[in-house]
Amino acid sequence: MDAFLNGEFVSVGQATVPINDRGLMYGDGLFETMRVYNGKAFRMAQHLERMVRGSEFLKIPLPFTPKQLQHFTEELIERNQMPDSVLRVTLTRGPGDRGYTPKSEAKPTLAMTLHPAPPLDPENPPQWSLITSSFRIPASDPLASFKTLNKLTSVMARIEAEARNADEALLTNTNGEVAETAGANLFWVYRDKICTTPTGRGVLPGITRAVVLEICQILNFETNKRVIKPESLKNSEAIFLTQSTLGVVVINSLDGEPTGQSPLVDQIYRAYCEMLVKP
Amino acid sequence: MDAFLNGEFVSVGQATVPINDRGLMYGDGLFETMRVYNGKAFRMAQHLERMVRGSEFLKIPLPFTPKQLQHFTEELIERNQMPDSVLRVTLTRGPGDRGYTPKSEAKPTLAMTLHPAPPLDPENPPQWSLITSSFRIPASDPLASFKTLNKLTSVMARIEAEARNADEALLTNTNGEVAETAGANLFWVYRDKICTTPTGRGVLPGITRAVVLEICQILNFETNKRVIKPESLKNSEAIFLTQSTLGVVVINSLDGEPTGQSPLVDQIYRAYCEMLVKP
Repeated sequence: MDAFLNGEFVSVGQATVPINDRGLMYGDGLFETMRVYNGKAFRMAQHLERMVRGSEFLKIPLPFTPKQLQHFTEELIERNQMPDSVLRVTLTRGPGDRGYTPKSEAKPTLAMTLHPAPPLDPENPPQWSLITSSFRIPASDPLASFKTLNKLTSVMARIEAEARNADEALLTNTNGEVAETAGANLFWVYRDKICTTPTGRGVLPGITRAVVLEICQILNFETNKRVIKPESLKNSEAIFLTQSTLGVVVINSLDGEPTGQSPLVDQIYRAYCEMLVKP
Repeated sequence: MDAFLNGEFVSVGQATVPINDRGLMYGDGLFETMRVYNGKAFRMAQHLERMVRGSEFLKIPLPFTPKQLQHFTEELIERNQMPDSVLRVTLTRGPGDRGYTPKSEAKPTLAMTLHPAPPLDPENPPQWSLITSSFRIPASDPLASFKTLNKLTSVMARIEAEARNADEALLTNTNGEVAETAGANLFWVYRDKICTTPTGRGVLPGITRAVVLEICQILNFETNKRVIKPESLKNSEAIFLTQSTLGVVVINSLDGEPTGQSPLVDQIYRAYCEMLVKP
């Protein structure tokens, strides 16, 4: 299998970075994950737009234009014959000296890899059990707007979920409000409204979250972005998650208690699958 | 120059990790930085103790015992003829699949590198200018007790400091209390007492912080661990920082205003230099 690394296609086994890459030293970088279906990376333009915004904020010059990256992605999918897969794009500040202050001469690292995708079943959305994590995310961190390489809280929350026999962990922010989950944005149904947490309080502006908000408009479902406390979430009619790999994930239990199901979520999932299949 | 990587000594140019190392993908790991003087890594036992505690918390098995690491460090210093340097030890969860949930079969990565040290001047402590950062750290994050690879807030705060022509950035926590700086613990002198922020509110339990508290006991200086707001810090008689590379750093200005100086800080700095020279 081939990876794309700094302008070249190399065998995955040979795709390495020096141990002084600042991505490794400090998590000094960004990434994006996309579902590849029928040979196309779904919503790649939006994912790369977020990466561009992030690279401007972190002051890491993106070494390729989004257009070039789309072209390299097509070649990567073709070379590996993986039209149905998951694409990861990683950008770091590149090799550098020890010390937090970045030196301006750094040459950023850009890597792209393909990974196996879970099979798509347009009839049955994936289902996950959810627990409330003990980990919290800062409510007012400007870095939360970007998909940075600092994901240890998500890793720890997943370890916690696994220890409690659950699939995913719900993260509250330092205000005690529900924010997102370790690897997804959170939605819930309340009085037939499709609700989600607003961005800007520790919540990543997810691309699939935006897709689902689009879908709700198409389906004429009322939406509501609102702050919610964990105890109120338990009163919702249904809970679901959005993330790039699986699209829409139905939550079937929260902290061990079965959660309600809503036909609206199934409709959203089907609409997502249709968009993925015919973008 | 040689690095130590996973049990072997390799040329730094050949010291690489695969791009699927979880340290690179998610900042999934820990590090320690130590001052090496007279061929000895200062307070290495305490640094490794913190790494062991962190590795237990993150559930990343440390592939070598602290004793083995101390032995490899001696060899690394000897091979590179760098008795006066800075040592960095990095531990990651190792190469792994995409996805936050770690798989148990992962083989951790352990890397050690030596870096040039700033020259030690036992008469004159290094001086830095400090600005208050707009970035905040979470007040109640259990990960703050460990030196993790998630250091993007420190990187961003340093970029901010540089843009404001300062050397270092003061970080408040999400409660609005002073926590630490991008790369150091914070101390201040108030009514001849040596004060520092308590750990557990976003403050890393720094090894040099502990050394300075020891020194204060030896010198019979009264100490006080207390929560402080940024505006109160401006009323202190002197401000100084502690970190492993430089030991004690005197702050000469805060947000552009000159800060006071205290002979007590000079005494602490001299005592630190003596300890470093004759551990």
